[in-house]
Amino acid sequence: MTRNMTITEVRLTPILVADPPLLNTQGVHQPYTPRLIVEVVTADGISGFGETYGDGKYLELARPFADRLVGRQVTDLNGLFTVADEVAVDAARVDNQVDVGGLRGVQTADKLRLSVVSAFEVACLDALGKALGLPVHALLGGKVRDAVEYSAYLFYKWADHPGGVACEKDDWGAAVDPAGVVEQARRFTERYGFTSFKLKGGVFPPDEEIAAVRALAEAFPGHPLRLDPNGAWSVETSLKVADALSDVLEYLEDPALGTAAMADVSLRTDVPLATNMCVTTFAEIKEAFARDAVQVVLSDHHYWGGLRNTQQLAAVCRTFGVGVSMHSNTHLGISLAAMTHVASTVPDLHHACDSHYPWQSEDVLTRRLAFEGGKVAVSDAPGLGVEVDRARLEFLHRRWLDDDGSLRDRDDAAAMRVADPGWVAPAVPRW
Amino acid sequence: MTRNMTITEVRLTPILVADPPLLNTQGVHQPYTPRLIVEVVTADGISGFGETYGDGKYLELARPFADRLVGRQVTDLNGLFTVADEVAVDAARVDNQVDVGGLRGVQTADKLRLSVVSAFEVACLDALGKALGLPVHALLGGKVRDAVEYSAYLFYKWADHPGGVACEKDDWGAAVDPAGVVEQARRFTERYGFTSFKLKGGVFPPDEEIAAVRALAEAFPGHPLRLDPNGAWSVETSLKVADALSDVLEYLEDPALGTAAMADVSLRTDVPLATNMCVTTFAEIKEAFARDAVQVVLSDHHYWGGLRNTQQLAAVCRTFGVGVSMHSNTHLGISLAAMTHVASTVPDLHHACDSHYPWQSEDVLTRRLAFEGGKVAVSDAPGLGVEVDRARLEFLHRRWLDDDGSLRDRDDAAAMRVADPGWVAPAVPRW
Repeated sequence: MTRNMTITEVRLTPILVADPPLLNTQGVHQPYTPRLIVEVVTADGISGFGETYGDGKYLELARPFADRLVGRQVTDLNGLFTVADEVAVDAARVDNQVDVGGLRGVQTADKLRLSVVSAFEVACLDALGKALGLPVHALLGGKVRDAVEYSAYLFYKWADHPGGVACEKDDWGAAVDPAGVVEQARRFTERYGFTSFKLKGGVFPPDEEIAAVRALAEAFPGHPLRLDPNGAWSVETSLKVADALSDVLEYLEDPALGTAAMADVSLRTDVPLATNMCVTTFAEIKEAFARDAVQVVLSDHHYWGGLRNTQQLAAVCRTFGVGVSMHSNTHLGISLAAMTHVASTVPDLHHACDSHYPWQSEDVLTRRLAFEGGKVAVSDAPGLGVEVDRARLEFLHRRWLDDDGSLRDRDDAAAMRVADPGWVAPAVPRW
Repeated sequence: MTRNMTITEVRLTPILVADPPLLNTQGVHQPYTPRLIVEVVTADGISGFGETYGDGKYLELARPFADRLVGRQVTDLNGLFTVADEVAVDAARVDNQVDVGGLRGVQTADKLRLSVVSAFEVACLDALGKALGLPVHALLGGKVRDAVEYSAYLFYKWADHPGGVACEKDDWGAAVDPAGVVEQARRFTERYGFTSFKLKGGVFPPDEEIAAVRALAEAFPGHPLRLDPNGAWSVETSLKVADALSDVLEYLEDPALGTAAMADVSLRTDVPLATNMCVTTFAEIKEAFARDAVQVVLSDHHYWGGLRNTQQLAAVCRTFGVGVSMHSNTHLGISLAAMTHVASTVPDLHHACDSHYPWQSEDVLTRRLAFEGGKVAVSDAPGLGVEVDRARLEFLHRRWLDDDGSLRDRDDAAAMRVADPGWVAPAVPRW
């Protein structure tokens, strides 16, 4: 019964993982994208894992943060925020920059800190669960469902990365028109059983994206559909799209950028608006809710500061009658497990969650998580219920070490310039 | 390591505990007040304890609820709300009644359910903590402070219960004027080290209560003071009192009844308003916050549905820039331990918490919790860190069994009629 859950070591492993040439309004995904794998080790030799963004600015913050965790208890989760506040961030480098790769709204030092905290919180919960013999969901008050539903995350994409770079090739082919999008959706359905579909938009002129969603509606009648241009549209364009798709959209995600524009759109359409760009921190909630700018908040434990903060966000949304679902950026199986655990504990999860996971052919796990019928089963094994393949982790870390620095900071616009040397991330609104 | 945390038995023990003749706007506390002690027992023989209101309507709900818990895991805390929803409440008996004894706003079946859930949630957390060797605060993400500050809860009171009933006599004497209130405050300070003071008002005409607070301000210059008439005043009277005491009040608590009246007061004074009457459920928050009716919400894990809901309430308040502190009704050491654990985990607890505990000469613990320097130390022992004295519990239960039914439902107005046969609980606003 005597147990020592003191953190004795924290390991940070930046990696580069293969990513298909997925298109968004900023550009195209690089062939490899950086992630940071966090491992906390307790005095009893138990390891817990978490993952988060792996760009340089996250690494810079994670290192001093990790040093401060040694000697603390893995149970001390509230204290992580205090530790984070003690770690200096070069605000001039991050404040009010738009986070290009993340497409997650305006960046601040506080958001950066929370993104780092999240990986350590998940790692501590994983270690704690293993130490106690309890699944992470039980540490969060217990699951209220046995499986979590995800949506098919459709992307416009090319068949290959531009520039003929040597990299892992995906087997999805191109999707640059309505027929390609429908074909992609069919394969998602066949492989994973998804029943709702989200299309990442903001890539082609709105009429083309309207046509793609219409084609999806015809191919999958009655299934929930979403469209997300990452704030690329004006208020008028947003309203035009909402009007054209009002009969088939479950919600429209971040059609216009910022709370003011979203509130303008919301006032003039009955199509629910979702966001992971204008409400990305607790500080942004009050104004957005007061103005009824959004009807669904897409939580993301990475940038809200962990699984317990995600539960608190859900409680805030429930209190104000705002729906909640889950956003995703490129992530691996550790994060999918974390997302699934927390989602299983949120009583009124209104919509299927987003996940990029099907696009990631590489992972650091010995055994990938599986979607069945569009759902991921909630693990009852101790901790997150996943096992890290250390050889695989080392392989992906080696790729990061060998990189000349050009891929260590995700930059979708830079990747696009390989195909189109004159490309700059478009000013918003683009249309 | 193999552990069986299945609930195999749930014991409900209604008790009557001695209560001094404390005055409020509804009447006077009875000589004995009902509480319900909940015990969950796991397959491994571990007992966890919780307590809540003990009136008949709570007992009626707690019994079928307890039956449904057998076979469930003590980790399944989110599931308690689902179970609660399955237990029928005679809504006609409770909905829209004003809860006389509790002075906790309008009563609904949902609030009744949450009050019952809270005792079971605390009992499960206590059992879980004991099973895992972890304090309850660690199950809530860990303490962020080592001791929790409480305020002195001053009451107008008589020296004896009316009618010459045979009962435990307190040693506090009478306090029915400014001098008596100051004397009571001095003894609170000497005995417990409290440095902030709350006076339960709504008992005497406002001018007398203003004089009492002024006397406190003179006797304890610079110390935070609060006045709580339980909604007994009109908007105009509330403003008059706020104006008269604006230089010494930390906040004014529920001067007028209901969100509309509180919003009217709030608009016209700079004195912060606190409430445990117009914001008592998550459903009441949206309107109250939108109207800026309150600046401090006094949480109470009993009626918000437990410790984890209390954390969620604190998160909602933090998100909207509203302060948070803690309300108290008559309670024993199990609840004080629970209050202290959760309060230790809330990062921005703005004010000292309320507690009736110093007024309770009786308890069910082998060792009472102690206030030192106005604070209760946060226990790091497994579970709540308290031990129940079963002989004492049986003694207080015997008193409940022996009661002819007249005290099993707390009724401050009925108690007042012993002294004043024509007394009816005053219509609001009283002044």
